[in-house]
Amino acid sequence: MTAEIITIGDEILIGQIVDTNSAYISKELNKIGVSVHQITSIQDEREHILQTLTEASQRADIIIITGGLGPTKDDITKKCLCEFFDDKLVRNDKVLRHIEELFEKYIDTPISDLNRDQALLPSKATALHNEYGTAAGMWFEDQGKVFVSMPGVPYEMRVLMEREVIPGLMRTFSRPVIIHRTVITYGLGESAIAEKIESWEDNLPAEIKLAYLPNLGRVRLRLSARGVDENYLNKLLDTQIDLLHEIIGDIIFGLEDDDSLEVVISKLLVQKEWTLSTAESCTGGRLASNFTREPGSSASFKGSVVCYSTTSKTELLDIPEEIIKKYSVVSAQVAKAMATGARNKFHTDFAISTTGNAGPTKGDSDADLGVVFIGIATPKGVEAYEFNFGNHREKVIGKSVNKAMQLIQESILKIGEEN
Amino acid sequence: MTAEIITIGDEILIGQIVDTNSAYISKELNKIGVSVHQITSIQDEREHILQTLTEASQRADIIIITGGLGPTKDDITKKCLCEFFDDKLVRNDKVLRHIEELFEKYIDTPISDLNRDQALLPSKATALHNEYGTAAGMWFEDQGKVFVSMPGVPYEMRVLMEREVIPGLMRTFSRPVIIHRTVITYGLGESAIAEKIESWEDNLPAEIKLAYLPNLGRVRLRLSARGVDENYLNKLLDTQIDLLHEIIGDIIFGLEDDDSLEVVISKLLVQKEWTLSTAESCTGGRLASNFTREPGSSASFKGSVVCYSTTSKTELLDIPEEIIKKYSVVSAQVAKAMATGARNKFHTDFAISTTGNAGPTKGDSDADLGVVFIGIATPKGVEAYEFNFGNHREKVIGKSVNKAMQLIQESILKIGEEN
Repeated sequence: MTAEIITIGDEILIGQIVDTNSAYISKELNKIGVSVHQITSIQDEREHILQTLTEASQRADIIIITGGLGPTKDDITKKCLCEFFDDKLVRNDKVLRHIEELFEKYIDTPISDLNRDQALLPSKATALHNEYGTAAGMWFEDQGKVFVSMPGVPYEMRVLMEREVIPGLMRTFSRPVIIHRTVITYGLGESAIAEKIESWEDNLPAEIKLAYLPNLGRVRLRLSARGVDENYLNKLLDTQIDLLHEIIGDIIFGLEDDDSLEVVISKLLVQKEWTLSTAESCTGGRLASNFTREPGSSASFKGSVVCYSTTSKTELLDIPEEIIKKYSVVSAQVAKAMATGARNKFHTDFAISTTGNAGPTKGDSDADLGVVFIGIATPKGVEAYEFNFGNHREKVIGKSVNKAMQLIQESILKIGEEN
Repeated sequence: MTAEIITIGDEILIGQIVDTNSAYISKELNKIGVSVHQITSIQDEREHILQTLTEASQRADIIIITGGLGPTKDDITKKCLCEFFDDKLVRNDKVLRHIEELFEKYIDTPISDLNRDQALLPSKATALHNEYGTAAGMWFEDQGKVFVSMPGVPYEMRVLMEREVIPGLMRTFSRPVIIHRTVITYGLGESAIAEKIESWEDNLPAEIKLAYLPNLGRVRLRLSARGVDENYLNKLLDTQIDLLHEIIGDIIFGLEDDDSLEVVISKLLVQKEWTLSTAESCTGGRLASNFTREPGSSASFKGSVVCYSTTSKTELLDIPEEIIKKYSVVSAQVAKAMATGARNKFHTDFAISTTGNAGPTKGDSDADLGVVFIGIATPKGVEAYEFNFGNHREKVIGKSVNKAMQLIQESILKIGEEN
């Protein structure tokens, strides 16, 4: 069972927005055993849309289209779908009522004919309810294939996927089982790992495919199994991961489940009724925004002081000026004092701190570019760790965030075991 | 002059990573008058890669490929390019020396044969120097078309684009001029704007194309002009934007240049030698990470207190407990006190605060879901503004960030004019 995703909209092709929708859709399709064969981004241009629809429908069973459903003239997806299916637009009264309700409740400007026209849908389409927006989703079935058209607004699209598209696909198709397991490693590069596990890799069962995903200091190894029997595939994967542990167990840090690392950490904290705060210099609030992204995060995450100036470190985190003068602002001592300061100020069990030179210039410190200290304060004390994350700002910040997440997860697990 | 982008890698098609590279590449190509006709993401799969290369080269003059250049077995782009150009791999000594140097300087593990093999390049390719990584870029010319292959690691790819690919394309092709202008509006929805400017839109000169880009409370109108004479196109755009001002000047907030809004704000601040800090509740550090993303941001941005608990608001920002008790934590009074607190604590000229219920549950306050107060403290005083950003967490946070940026920019501009 394969799918293709088509994203329609000039803004992607001139680089004005990043296409986050395709990654989300791919992930959700994969979970139900549908593999994505190709993602194609094209402009709001009639002929190109029609041609892309034709080509995709020759290759895939499911075609998911996003974008181009706005009320304005530049949005032509609906018209193109009509042409593609030799169909015409008809008014959908239920959709019209929903549009009128949204305008009454949430939108300051009066409803216009353009808005009302969003309730005109191709007669062959089943409308999919878009709770958060005025552009309805559309579901077509044609010669055993399913075509879905959704708005490009990410949160509208996601709700449609979750409530309408995924359940609909599960009802319509019987699908193979696809299971991904991702092993997280730290400490060795991609090629060094590849050499160590070469014979393991060569002897993987045919059902399992391996991919290396290096990213800012960690390499994830993704094993994808494909077949018909979920139990059998899970056993195959278990066996292979056990074998992998025998070879490179020292650098394996854990398995990534569907959750992001920040969610994994939040869950660990909530389990133990522990709390976390951060004091961020070089990561500039990136840790805090990671930890606050998910609903319910306030149960374990209490806050952050982002101190981009030396004075804010002394005044907000009570770091003695002498320490900064003596050791410089980028130092193990300051990292420790920051972590301790955050832990005290926010009254949390754990705290992470980061201080470093992300570059491109040196700032308030003599430390080399790329040097970063990460402090971890726990109920058992405080530690600081030194790293050199290289010479590129984005890399330094990204690696600092990843490493800080790793260190805090390790600390929480360790102290959790001891208790 | 048209280009196509091909991104190769299973991780995109199973949704493990978001393809940010294509947006960056599209933007850079657009700046030099190359329009991107299609972006295609495919797996590391020989036949599909070869077929996609063939199809793209039939449609476009420039084919930019990213990904699949790692040292491990799952990366096959180089082999496929050899097959496509009927070529063979030969050792590039300069690339080999660079790989060896990177290992000596930055990489803990010893260099392996797999790493050394990254210096094997197709004989018809010109190597492009990848300063930050071991996978060289490659430049092919074939029947008047240019093919470029780059690693998928974003910061490596960006440096290659900037230093090698863009200059190379400018030398190779004479290109039309493409100019984009983006007008930012706040306060009216997409369709309401479309109705107001309908006759202006219908009468746009043939060289200009209009797109509506709605995003979390603001609608951007992008005018794209295409032709041969830069001066003429600029004049056309000036005239049309003047006309637009006559119709909807009341909701036009400014022109977006190439810089993001946070960079625009930082530049305004640096010009006046002013500084900024934030106190964030519902935005959870998102404002701080926006402001610290760019190099040099510490000149104007001094820090943030992310207070995800009520006690941190009182202790770190000195907000009197009575105010929180009397008005609740989500209130104009608390927003004002937070902004004032940040301004005092970080000794900055301006401060932004956010407090609200992003949902999905209500948290420490009685305020409705979606209610957000944004405080703006300036040398002239402090104001708070109330909004209802609806019922979806991501939307509420995103709209809060956008609105806070708008409000602070307006304040800085206003006080700048008065001075």
